[in-house]
Amino acid sequence: MGHHTDFLNMNIEQLNQHYASLKERYDEYKNQNMKLDMSRGKPCPEQLELSKSMLDTVTSSDRLQASDGSDCLNYGGVDGIPEAKELFAQILGVSSNEVIIGGSSSLTMMHDTISRAMLHGVYGSEQPWVKQPTVKFLCPSPGYDRHFAICELLNIEMIVVDMLHDGPDMDAVEALVSQDDSIKGIWCVPKYSNPDGITYSHQVVNRLANMKTKARDFRIFWDDAYSVHHLTDQPDPLTNVLSACKEAGNPDRVFLFCSTSKITFPGAGVAAMAGSVENINYMRSLISVQTIGPDKINQLRHTRFLKDMDHVRSHMAKHAAILKPKFEMVLGKLESELDGKNIAFWNKPNGGYFISLNTLDGCAKIAVKMAADAGVTLTAAGATFPYGRDPRDRNIRIAPSFPSVKELEKSIEVLSICIQLASIDKILLEQ
Amino acid sequence: MGHHTDFLNMNIEQLNQHYASLKERYDEYKNQNMKLDMSRGKPCPEQLELSKSMLDTVTSSDRLQASDGSDCLNYGGVDGIPEAKELFAQILGVSSNEVIIGGSSSLTMMHDTISRAMLHGVYGSEQPWVKQPTVKFLCPSPGYDRHFAICELLNIEMIVVDMLHDGPDMDAVEALVSQDDSIKGIWCVPKYSNPDGITYSHQVVNRLANMKTKARDFRIFWDDAYSVHHLTDQPDPLTNVLSACKEAGNPDRVFLFCSTSKITFPGAGVAAMAGSVENINYMRSLISVQTIGPDKINQLRHTRFLKDMDHVRSHMAKHAAILKPKFEMVLGKLESELDGKNIAFWNKPNGGYFISLNTLDGCAKIAVKMAADAGVTLTAAGATFPYGRDPRDRNIRIAPSFPSVKELEKSIEVLSICIQLASIDKILLEQ
Repeated sequence: MGHHTDFLNMNIEQLNQHYASLKERYDEYKNQNMKLDMSRGKPCPEQLELSKSMLDTVTSSDRLQASDGSDCLNYGGVDGIPEAKELFAQILGVSSNEVIIGGSSSLTMMHDTISRAMLHGVYGSEQPWVKQPTVKFLCPSPGYDRHFAICELLNIEMIVVDMLHDGPDMDAVEALVSQDDSIKGIWCVPKYSNPDGITYSHQVVNRLANMKTKARDFRIFWDDAYSVHHLTDQPDPLTNVLSACKEAGNPDRVFLFCSTSKITFPGAGVAAMAGSVENINYMRSLISVQTIGPDKINQLRHTRFLKDMDHVRSHMAKHAAILKPKFEMVLGKLESELDGKNIAFWNKPNGGYFISLNTLDGCAKIAVKMAADAGVTLTAAGATFPYGRDPRDRNIRIAPSFPSVKELEKSIEVLSICIQLASIDKILLEQ
Repeated sequence: MGHHTDFLNMNIEQLNQHYASLKERYDEYKNQNMKLDMSRGKPCPEQLELSKSMLDTVTSSDRLQASDGSDCLNYGGVDGIPEAKELFAQILGVSSNEVIIGGSSSLTMMHDTISRAMLHGVYGSEQPWVKQPTVKFLCPSPGYDRHFAICELLNIEMIVVDMLHDGPDMDAVEALVSQDDSIKGIWCVPKYSNPDGITYSHQVVNRLANMKTKARDFRIFWDDAYSVHHLTDQPDPLTNVLSACKEAGNPDRVFLFCSTSKITFPGAGVAAMAGSVENINYMRSLISVQTIGPDKINQLRHTRFLKDMDHVRSHMAKHAAILKPKFEMVLGKLESELDGKNIAFWNKPNGGYFISLNTLDGCAKIAVKMAADAGVTLTAAGATFPYGRDPRDRNIRIAPSFPSVKELEKSIEVLSICIQLASIDKILLEQ
């Protein structure tokens, strides 16, 4: 029996035969007591090694003043040192007066921005969001579980919008936001999206910038987490959303976020947010009650190490050199194990941290569980949807960055076996 | 005319004579175009120098694992690395499982704790605080302006409680909290309080721990900012508030906060909070939606540099050696300029960052303004009270840490002249 047989065209006997041999392979793996983790988009040790010399850029013998002369060891600088603003302005494609530097986590900046919107509103709000009976967010899905967790925590009702090949289903988005003024925001990972690896098309970005929203204080939460995280020499182009919003006459519509978590260190990076000067002034005034200023020494470290966009790009090429063989292993293995069988479909991203795989409806949870039983941990099935509920139970997020190529080979083989077993179970049950 | 003349016993002629000679001195200073800043409790460069070698404890050639083996460069550790929890547990006098490590700012942890209480309630709350028509906090005053700013931002009504010689007026506190269930919290800087330099007595701590509160989810916000910031060899003793609360049967009543801002670097320190395991578990679950974890490398840096309480103590003795002559200059100058005149009264703190000075009623604002006109910047008069309103307009906060001893000599002389001029104006007006 060849690998490239369409499961949907097999008869019961063929399926049973196939199941038996797959089950044998599965049990063999299970007996190996493996412990492989593909659950989170976590850089591997070799990637962390790339930035270690950053730790040597700020020592006791170095100059510890920012470019404006301020002492980075002392209080001050609520929105960051000038050189950090300049660097992140380049990364995000905005002006440096449109940037606020944060602590180590962009997730924190997103969480805090929405918490603040709940308690105070955003720039231009008539009232705090929490004063409304309901606040809703559009959640293009599959998407990032930690975005959804913020909404869930804050009792923000999440409305699933399908991800198409070039971004969220904009017909659905436009129809929803034009009619319901309780819809206050949309989550977007516009480049190499988590988990689909999709980059929003020019048209999608423009429609987001131009669409009529019933809520006058509607905001796009633009999590540009993978803006420089390419896997090829020909990065996906992404239209500048802040410029698009300005041109559309909606300059205050978007908040951009990014961090160096996957550029330098997840455990000791620098995060930033951006938006119109009005948005940023409003945020700065709220943030100045929360802190006297984030860690300036770590900003200094980062700007000394990353310098400018040219250096960022060549630094990210080193990350790509480590990640590319991993993605290729996963994609190659998926192809050799699952291609042509009509039971699984996956994306081939040009960047980012994930490969998104869809099984037959109803097979994701059981496949992920079987893989876990055989020692291969994946992101929980359903996690890529609001409330952890994948309506079709089919999406599996694969995070290839942390395991070694060898481990990935095994892991994907195990996962592929599990998907096939689950698929046969389903097909037999339906016959 | 001697320095030690009681102004209240002078006749009009004497006062006018005195005024003229003071005015002459004032104008002389004014013509010098000085620029001296005593407005914020900011460590001076010599103090920052004490911790610079901390920057050399984590370089590319060092081990970057925490004591539990986790890689400090990578994701994880939402509440801190074990050795950081251990160190801060010692500083705060709690167990390490009662600690959460944050980013660089304890102010942020306080702000976020109250924001969370507004949106979700605290452990044991029946509903989010924001659902109540009014939320009130007790504000022992004079106090820390940034505490008050958090309340003001969140529309929390502030009730002034007088600071007595051993802490807040507990008769007033007990009467208020026992009757009004909208009073949800009290701000405390229990050791070397900002600005009075008062340390709460054993009795005050015990009354806070034991008092009956009508709000079942009442919380003490215990900002232990100066716990190890002594100016003498015989530090003020402070009763352990968490132990006291546990003994009183109110284990969840208190949140403790501290940071290394004034131990290592204000611009790149580490903050922590503490409380009962129940409080901490509740907070951790909320924080885990906000961040994957704070900067672990900076935690490593701090634990390697500060090591343990013995090292913290000897390190803080070096701070004291720098600060003590500054406090002595201020106190000595105040004494030589103002003592015996019956127009100003000040504290002599055993630690902390401030000297709190009270003028005759109605003289603080004008004295601070006159000083500013002569180039000496002080914390805005009134800032030590909620809403920036000092009901008696008499409190002036002096922050001696940043200027040099020489600058302090001049600054306090100018301030003393201003206070005398304002006092004579007042006395003459009332005669």
